[in-house]
Amino acid sequence: ARFGVMYDSTPTAADELAIHNRFTLNIDGVTETDSGIEFFARVRVRGGNTGTGTTSASGVSAPRVGMSINGVTVAVGNITGALEETPGLYDGAVGLTGLGDLNVVAITDQNGGNWDSFSSAGGGVNGAEVLFSTGAFGAHLSYSPVTDRTAVNASYNFGDWTVAAAYQDAGLNTDDKWVLTAGGSFGNFGVGASYGDNDGVAKFRVNGSAAVGSGTRVTAFVADDESATDTLWGLGFTHSLGGAVLAGGVVGDQDGENQADLGVRFSF
Amino acid sequence: ARFGVMYDSTPTAADELAIHNRFTLNIDGVTETDSGIEFFARVRVRGGNTGTGTTSASGVSAPRVGMSINGVTVAVGNITGALEETPGLYDGAVGLTGLGDLNVVAITDQNGGNWDSFSSAGGGVNGAEVLFSTGAFGAHLSYSPVTDRTAVNASYNFGDWTVAAAYQDAGLNTDDKWVLTAGGSFGNFGVGASYGDNDGVAKFRVNGSAAVGSGTRVTAFVADDESATDTLWGLGFTHSLGGAVLAGGVVGDQDGENQADLGVRFSF
Amino acid sequence: ARFGVMYDSTPTAADELAIHNRFTLNIDGVTETDSGIEFFARVRVRGGNTGTGTTSASGVSAPRVGMSINGVTVAVGNITGALEETPGLYDGAVGLTGLGDLNVVAITDQNGGNWDSFSSAGGGVNGAEVLFSTGAFGAHLSYSPVTDRTAVNASYNFGDWTVAAAYQDAGLNTDDKWVLTAGGSFGNFGVGASYGDNDGVAKFRVNGSAAVGSGTRVTAFVADDESATDTLWGLGFTHSLGGAVLAGGVVGDQDGENQADLGVRFSF
Repeated sequence: ARFGVMYDSTPTAADELAIHNRFTLNIDGVTETDSGIEFFARVRVRGGNTGTGTTSASGVSAPRVGMSINGVTVAVGNITGALEETPGLYDGAVGLTGLGDLNVVAITDQNGGNWDSFSSAGGGVNGAEVLFSTGAFGAHLSYSPVTDRTAVNASYNFGDWTVAAAYQDAGLNTDDKWVLTAGGSFGNFGVGASYGDNDGVAKFRVNGSAAVGSGTRVTAFVADDESATDTLWGLGFTHSLGGAVLAGGVVGDQDGENQADLGVRFSF
Repeated sequence: ARFGVMYDSTPTAADELAIHNRFTLNIDGVTETDSGIEFFARVRVRGGNTGTGTTSASGVSAPRVGMSINGVTVAVGNITGALEETPGLYDGAVGLTGLGDLNVVAITDQNGGNWDSFSSAGGGVNGAEVLFSTGAFGAHLSYSPVTDRTAVNASYNFGDWTVAAAYQDAGLNTDDKWVLTAGGSFGNFGVGASYGDNDGVAKFRVNGSAAVGSGTRVTAFVADDESATDTLWGLGFTHSLGGAVLAGGVVGDQDGENQADLGVRFSF
Repeated sequence: ARFGVMYDSTPTAADELAIHNRFTLNIDGVTETDSGIEFFARVRVRGGNTGTGTTSASGVSAPRVGMSINGVTVAVGNITGALEETPGLYDGAVGLTGLGDLNVVAITDQNGGNWDSFSSAGGGVNGAEVLFSTGAFGAHLSYSPVTDRTAVNASYNFGDWTVAAAYQDAGLNTDDKWVLTAGGSFGNFGVGASYGDNDGVAKFRVNGSAAVGSGTRVTAFVADDESATDTLWGLGFTHSLGGAVLAGGVVGDQDGENQADLGVRFSF
């Protein structure tokens, strides 16, 4: 769960200051056969509201159901999606809420960010996916006949560094995209970079983070979206409360407006 | 939970092949008084999607609330319904999903299959019901002022055999119906028969099953629905995975079209 | 959970007699930091139906998320609301269901009863609130930018007696109101009184209860609503079943019509 305050400088924003809160509870059903196959099913209870608009109740997501054995997972229904799950895709995220995910190179001003992912309180895409991991290598293939999107990612981990690539082929051509990510850490520092081609629209991001003092980390990113007017940037911090996390951040968006947030997130 | 693949040969079917998945979690609240009365309340979390249509989130059913003592149960709200709970009504079911419940003699091409039953993710019929069981005898009476349906069933069990009868009187005359069922087992075999009168439309079904090898059972039924063009039939199997069940089946429907499914179901 | 039967003599009532049932399950996520701050999040699963209208499924409320330390609680989202939580506001309630809450002086025929409160299956008011308690003194301040209502209550407890006051300032003037309550007990008896000013419309209530025999309590109230035609009154009882409670009551409403209920409520 998380709660806090959000700020948006955009003149047309619904709220300049907004109360934000969110609740997440995964309900996982798991069983294992005598032969070692694990069968699982998950639904998610998700709710929350931001600002002064009409509030909504919480919802229970459509299920993701599947099986795992020997590092191979097959799932159907409300799948997680291969592009969404690309390691490093969300690296450089700042703030309590992610503040619009401007750091993600698969989202551009022109093409939006359309791919299959687990719907936290909705129906999802009723697709199928296969995940595979062995030692340092991981791969993920997903397909939904509802959205007509096929996506694949592959990643390799060596020590403190991970590189990944992903590709999506969509029935809607403007949703075709591919993504490269790289990231790692040395001592108190983390760095990353990512490049995305969104049906010909390029976006590039670099990010870095540093541990400053006990339990505090500062994160920043800069991103260039070929279809955006302004350079995208973000600066954020997290501070451990020893069982919860104080988080905040500020970003500059494609129109040069700023969004910021501050609050606490915790697990239970 | 369950997941798998469904097939439908019907030319107008939404999908010839469809991804299927379903999630069920009962939330049961139970307390017992010092005098031994058990009070209970149940809601069900249910979700799942099939095929390429618009997907839907999971839902939480309306509650069934009531009390039990000395073999008598009284419940109100989202009741289970006496006709629905007739022992043997669903005997002969094949496949992962039941494949349209063609084996049920209370469902006909002309009259449909309308009776009160527990709604897994909806509001139910806000009715009242009384269940009674003593030794080999069981009875169940239900009424809903919302649907204006009164139903009753009675059953008797002797050793491996059970016979049951049910009757529904509905405000909508075409929903009047009565049902007889009989079923039992001997060694590795099971057999059953059922007859239904659906406001004058007769339907008859015979079914049988056999254990073949370790953990595998084959089930088949044939049914004649007076209002249908073709004879209804079904053939299915279940195979234990030692903690989950592989199940599949194929049926021939009232128009001579085929539906089939294959998948896994498991509890958690 | 609770279930039972409701009666309404009103000629235009949807049902004279109605089946009633309700289910409540709070899902609480709580964590505590090393420094002793408790962070919490709650959603509620709530369902139930009454009578012969269209039934509805259960719902999951929007979350209330916040933190507590040293007797101070701050929460945002689906807040409980300071006026709603005024100690003694609901004193004198009768029956299984409260029977229209005629005993509450903040509800009048002319002004209705509009204030912020926790929505059991809906979105709530996405507000913020602070609660404070120390020894015998308690206070509660709430505000919602969605409803534009600010409310505050304060209460003081001395031995078996409690007095409280509350005030609401609303963007909609007819929702401005203030409330005084006092209540206490001596031996087997309880008494209380409450006065409300609802944008100039006065309402007054006195209530009393008495333990009669083992596990049985009788409660009654009389209330005068300046904007109502008839005097409001209620008479009810509760009887312990040793793990559940049998409850029933009857009231006379602002038009001289009667509502009554009888049933069982229990926790699990």
